[in-house]
Order: sequence, then structure tokens, then C-alpha cells
Amino acid sequence: MVSASVPRVRGCIFVLTDYGNSDEFAGILRSVIARQAPGAPVVDLTHGIAAFDVRAGALCLARSVPHLGPGVLLGVVDPGVATSRRAIALNLGDISRPRHLVGPDNGLLIWAAEAIGGVQAAVELDRTGSGTFDGRDLFAPVASALWNGTAMADLGPAVDPDHLVRLREPALSVGAGVIEAEVLWVDTFGNVQLSARATDATSTGLGGLVEIEAAGRLSTCERAGSFEAVPSGGIGLIVDSNGHLALVGDRSSAALTLGLRETDPVTLRRVGGTS
Amino acid sequence: MVSASVPRVRGCIFVLTDYGNSDEFAGILRSVIARQAPGAPVVDLTHGIAAFDVRAGALCLARSVPHLGPGVLLGVVDPGVATSRRAIALNLGDISRPRHLVGPDNGLLIWAAEAIGGVQAAVELDRTGSGTFDGRDLFAPVASALWNGTAMADLGPAVDPDHLVRLREPALSVGAGVIEAEVLWVDTFGNVQLSARATDATSTGLGGLVEIEAAGRLSTCERAGSFEAVPSGGIGLIVDSNGHLALVGDRSSAALTLGLRETDPVTLRRVGGTS
Amino acid sequence: MVSASVPRVRGCIFVLTDYGNSDEFAGILRSVIARQAPGAPVVDLTHGIAAFDVRAGALCLARSVPHLGPGVLLGVVDPGVATSRRAIALNLGDISRPRHLVGPDNGLLIWAAEAIGGVQAAVELDRTGSGTFDGRDLFAPVASALWNGTAMADLGPAVDPDHLVRLREPALSVGAGVIEAEVLWVDTFGNVQLSARATDATSTGLGGLVEIEAAGRLSTCERAGSFEAVPSGGIGLIVDSNGHLALVGDRSSAALTLGLRETDPVTLRRVGGTS
Repeated sequence: MVSASVPRVRGCIFVLTDYGNSDEFAGILRSVIARQAPGAPVVDLTHGIAAFDVRAGALCLARSVPHLGPGVLLGVVDPGVATSRRAIALNLGDISRPRHLVGPDNGLLIWAAEAIGGVQAAVELDRTGSGTFDGRDLFAPVASALWNGTAMADLGPAVDPDHLVRLREPALSVGAGVIEAEVLWVDTFGNVQLSARATDATSTGLGGLVEIEAAGRLSTCERAGSFEAVPSGGIGLIVDSNGHLALVGDRSSAALTLGLRETDPVTLRRVGGTS
Repeated sequence: MVSASVPRVRGCIFVLTDYGNSDEFAGILRSVIARQAPGAPVVDLTHGIAAFDVRAGALCLARSVPHLGPGVLLGVVDPGVATSRRAIALNLGDISRPRHLVGPDNGLLIWAAEAIGGVQAAVELDRTGSGTFDGRDLFAPVASALWNGTAMADLGPAVDPDHLVRLREPALSVGAGVIEAEVLWVDTFGNVQLSARATDATSTGLGGLVEIEAAGRLSTCERAGSFEAVPSGGIGLIVDSNGHLALVGDRSSAALTLGLRETDPVTLRRVGGTS
Repeated sequence: MVSASVPRVRGCIFVLTDYGNSDEFAGILRSVIARQAPGAPVVDLTHGIAAFDVRAGALCLARSVPHLGPGVLLGVVDPGVATSRRAIALNLGDISRPRHLVGPDNGLLIWAAEAIGGVQAAVELDRTGSGTFDGRDLFAPVASALWNGTAMADLGPAVDPDHLVRLREPALSVGAGVIEAEVLWVDTFGNVQLSARATDATSTGLGGLVEIEAAGRLSTCERAGSFEAVPSGGIGLIVDSNGHLALVGDRSSAALTLGLRETDPVTLRRVGGTS
């Protein structure tokens, strides 16, 4: 009897690093993949994560994965390169998204995995031959091997997914008419993404005028349905393209206007009928 | 009877944005295209257009299109995202160049279209589901659909090409021995491209020594046939690789030397036999 | 009789320039290659070489080529564009690496060639039609032609490889307990790569505590086997991923700490048993 077989969709190899675009580091990853997984479409998510900023890389991956097709995701933000930190590969369950994630075991990958269904299996990579450029010598070869069809079990011993390194969860407290959130991300346009989501604004009744307590100052903004509703020179509170609440300017940087940086706390308060 | 068929050349999907390379925005466009138009070669023209600078993006596209092969061009410089501005797709006539242009109706695309033969047809895109990240949710899917063979008519209602939004045309006045031009572009090397072309220099008799009035100051430069003819530390007036007159330094930034920025006025005058 | 034939491996077209990522220059190269060598996988090594820095580009290529697969390498860092400098294509012997190198004859390519076996043949490119954007008008078309199978002899007359332009070799002097080296490269993380190699440290007996004389100051560092062994806030001397000695910080920029820039001299001295 011939068993039904599901044709394997190889998809792309998606790459995120903090290597920047000045040196050849990202180009070497692309070159290693081109050599070891000929024909694999390589999609650079970004190489512009701030150096060593694992949290920023982890949030970027978590925002990105719901929009990716099948394939392998390679993430390298790795202040612990050439130390004893573990290197891992993860197997996920959603076949319409990246099926395998590869990178350091420092919290970079786990939020992305959880954004698309969670980790089904994890292995610790054999680090023989790894050194100060694991992207080139370990992670890109492993990503290529997974794209080529290598089994997880051939890459190293299984690891309990519950024992993977995790980063501190972003702060978020939702009360009556008040949201205490944290700046997740300041993007290149100066938009300020908060840890709160659209549903948090709804449940706290935030709407119309909203008070912002941020960077030691009080100000107000308008809950806006679109950028058009943001007053010129002012700040609007919108639901951004990731479903998060975000403070945005009208063609200006809300981060500069409010003096906000990533990980800063921000409190939003409903303004009473008297205002 | 079997009609002769012309094999369709799909070509590439060319992409230009002001997203920068720090965040994942450009990577998400590449990922959406990889998912929705598998096999489409994606060519990043640049993601380094200054934020919200529609004019710079429009000039960049107009310079670029004569050098592109067949395919679809996706341009996103869109300060009006999440407002009521229209989103459009254009159909052009030159099959050896990008056949379809996709982006906001804010002047970004029209100069590029006119640089390779003009707009044959335009449609307004159905914006159902569009929000604050139209590149991801609207423009990349439409570019993918066009690459896949979707007909323009299936994307939305026809628009009169004469009613598309246009930017102010760059200033240019050519008189006897005088050219009043505008800085179109300061490139990464500090070369200053003017709105005047080689033929304008010829028709005004500009040659040899040329007086420059720019940024409130008078200086002179040499009409140079090549960079070698530019005096060390000085400024040369050359015909650049786009056929425009340009002020250039000898391995130095002419823009810094002359204090010039994009859209600044520049007057060039023929210097008489007495100089 | 049918002769055995070796299937030609086309490989990739690898690209390195100083064009930056702000303008469309690199995108135009990618577009020209897409048009003239359809199907060629284009791998951007980097476009972030500092403007006109031929030495930095040459070192970057030399570091990179041992990690590339087969194909054509296109390098453009070319302060002499639109002058009488020669344009060249090189044929190398190692078929598992880039077989052809294309670019200006200014020293950019030769160290890379020598890093993977040296130049077997060189031709001077016909520069008819070349101008101020040779990357677009000359080098990308030639790289595409070579990828398509065009013979070197069809590109221009042969040149004696011994007569190619060379840059000054990096300084390096290895004595008893002393290495006088030069900074080859400061990478985006601030790591300082020296012209000395691991074997130089071994032959001079450098180990344990090492004295650094750099930028007019004396300091000390530890010979470290890994980044973990670098003291927090201090400097370590490691063997980097290219086999060179490098001064590195613990998640900090060694270049900033030591005040070092590319081409600066650095002296390393063994510290006697009294320290």
C-alpha cells in the first residue's frame, strides 16, 4: 500500500540580524545559504536591529511571523556569541508559516514561535566548529540544512521547550479607565508602539480625549481612527498595523515629541466628561 | 484556428519605499510578495528615500525606470496612508519596461510612467481592508496579483489618467547665457543634480568657465568632460549618468562645498571672454 | 567519440560597492543584472563600504571570497570613475569559488583573487559607452555576460596580471615578543581587526597579559579564547572569524575604548613574568 504523501513546501529562508548593512556580515549569510541551499529564496527581514538588542529583535520577529509564508526563519542577535549559551532550532506546528526557527537560545525566537502557535519540538545544536561568527559557521548552515530537508533529530539532542531562555515579558496593567503600558517599539517614522492592544482600549473605555503620562510629563492626545484625524502638530492614539495601541504624529515623530524610547513606561488615562 | 500568442514575460517586481532598512517594513513587503507571487524575482530599488519625501521618490523612480526590464513596479512613499487619498495601479505601453506601476495617487508614480511612454490606463484600487500599512495590506498584494496575471479591471474602477495627482514640476528657465534651475537630487556622494539637461547647456552656450549663483553666494566652476577635469578641491559642471547637468566635486561633496540642498534654486551663467 | 563534459555551474553574481543604500545605485545594478542575466541569483555582499575607500573594499572582498560559492564577483569602489583608469575582468582558478572578478583596476580586486588562488588571466574591458556610472553601463553588463558564458577574450585585450594596480600592503612586523601591526578593519560592533594573524601571536609568544600601544597610549588586554573571557568593560585579544588577531570589547566598542581607526598602527608586546 502506498501511503498518501504531502508534497513538502520548502518556502523561503527568512533572515533577521543585528549585523547592520555596513559590513559584509549579512552578505556572508546570504552567500553561505546560496552555497548550501541552492535555489532557496532568501528574504531579508532586516539587519537593522540595534547591536545586541535581543528584545528588539524578538519583538520584530514576533510582529513579522504572522505575515510570512512557509520556510525557515534564521535570527541572529547574539551578544553571547562565543560563550557557552546554547544554540537551538525549533519546530512549529503551522505549516503555512515558517516551520523551523534557528538561532541562539537567548529569548530571540520564542515570542515569534508563540505568535504562530508555539514550539512543538526543540533541539540544541551541535556547536562543534562554532566560534565568533556563528551566523556564518553554525546558524546559516543549519537553516540551509533544514530547508534541504534535514531532520531536527540530526541536528542535536532534544530540549524541553519549557526550558528555553525567555526575556522579561513587556509590562502591561489594565484597570478602570487606566492603562499602564510599556513602549515596545519606536519605528523609523517615530511611531510609538505600546504593549497594550486595541481590546485594552475598548475594555477601559479609552476614547475621545486621552491623557498621556510619559517621560515625567502629562499631555493629551486624541483617539484617532486614521492619520487624518491626528491634529497637525499633535499626537494621536491609533491601533497600528500589528493590532497594538500606538502614539503617532502627523508626519512627525511622536517619540521625539513625547521624549519616549523603547522600554519606557507610558500611562494612558480616560479623560472625564468635564474636559 | 489557433491565434498566435505572445508569451507573457513576467519579469521582476521592483520595489521603492521610504521605509528605511532599520525596521522590518521592507522585509514584510518582500515576504508578502514571496507568499503571494511565488517565484517572482524581487528587486529592491531602494528603501532609503527620506521619510514622506514623495518628490524625492518620484524623481528616483523616473531616473530608474529607463534602466529596468519588464515587470511590475511597486512604489510606496505615502504620507497620506490611512487617509482618504486614492491608491492606484497604472498600465504602461512599453513592454520592455515595467508594465504596471502600483502605489498611492500622490504624484509618486506619474513621472516614472511618463519617462517610459506614459500611462495607457489607470484604476483606483479597492481599499477594503487597508489601514496604516498599505504597503503590506494593499500595494504588495496588488503588485503580486498583477505579476500573477490579474487584469487591471479586476482591481478597481478605471480612472482618467489626466486626473491623477501631480507634483509641482521642477523649476527650469533657460535664457541667453543663463540657466535658472533647481536642485533635483543630492546623491550619497554629494553630487548635485540640476533640473537642466545637457541640451540646455548647449543651447545657452555654457562652456569653459561658468558662474554659479547658489545659496546666496557666487562662485565659479569648470564645464568638465569627466571627473579627471574637475580641479582638486574645486567644482565641476558635468553631464551626469541621467543626462542632467550636475555640480560635482573631486572625491568631495559638491553639496557641502556649495551649501546646496534638494529643491534649492541654482543659476548658471556663461562667463564672458574677459574672464 | 564523445568527450566527457563538465556541466558548467553558473552560481551567483556577488556584488560589493560603496554606493550606500540611500539612492537607487545598487538597485540599478540589481535591475541591470536581472535584465541582462535573467535567472542569475544576485547576492549583495554589502553596499556600505565608505565612499571611495578602495582599501576597505579590497579588504572586505578578501575576507569574503573564501566563503562564497561559484559565480561572478562584481566590485565597484571607484573614485576614478570617468577618468582614464582601466576597467578589468579577472579569471581565477578555483571553480568552487567566484571564477570571475569584474571591476576597476585600482587594487580593489587583487587581494580577493589572491585569497582564493590568484589570477590566471586578466583582460582590459572595452570602455566604449562608459561614463560616470560604470557600475550600470560597464561592470554590471560585463558581469552578466560572464555569468551568461561570454569568454574573457571577447571582453577586451589580455593584460599581464603582474601589471595590475596594487594597493600598499598592510604594515606588519613580527619580532621577539612584539608585533607591530596595522588596523585593517573596524567593524560595526567596534571590533578592531589587526593585520597580524593567530600564528603571529603564537610565534611571538603573546599570551596572558598583553601590552597595547595604540593612538599614543599604553594599555593592557587579556589574550582571550572567547568573548566570555573578556573582562567586563575591558579589552580582549582574540583570534577573529577571519583568523586575524582582533581587539574586542565585552558588548562594547573596542575601537571607541582605544581610540582606533582603520590604518592606525598598533603595537602588541608580551608582558614579562613580573607583571
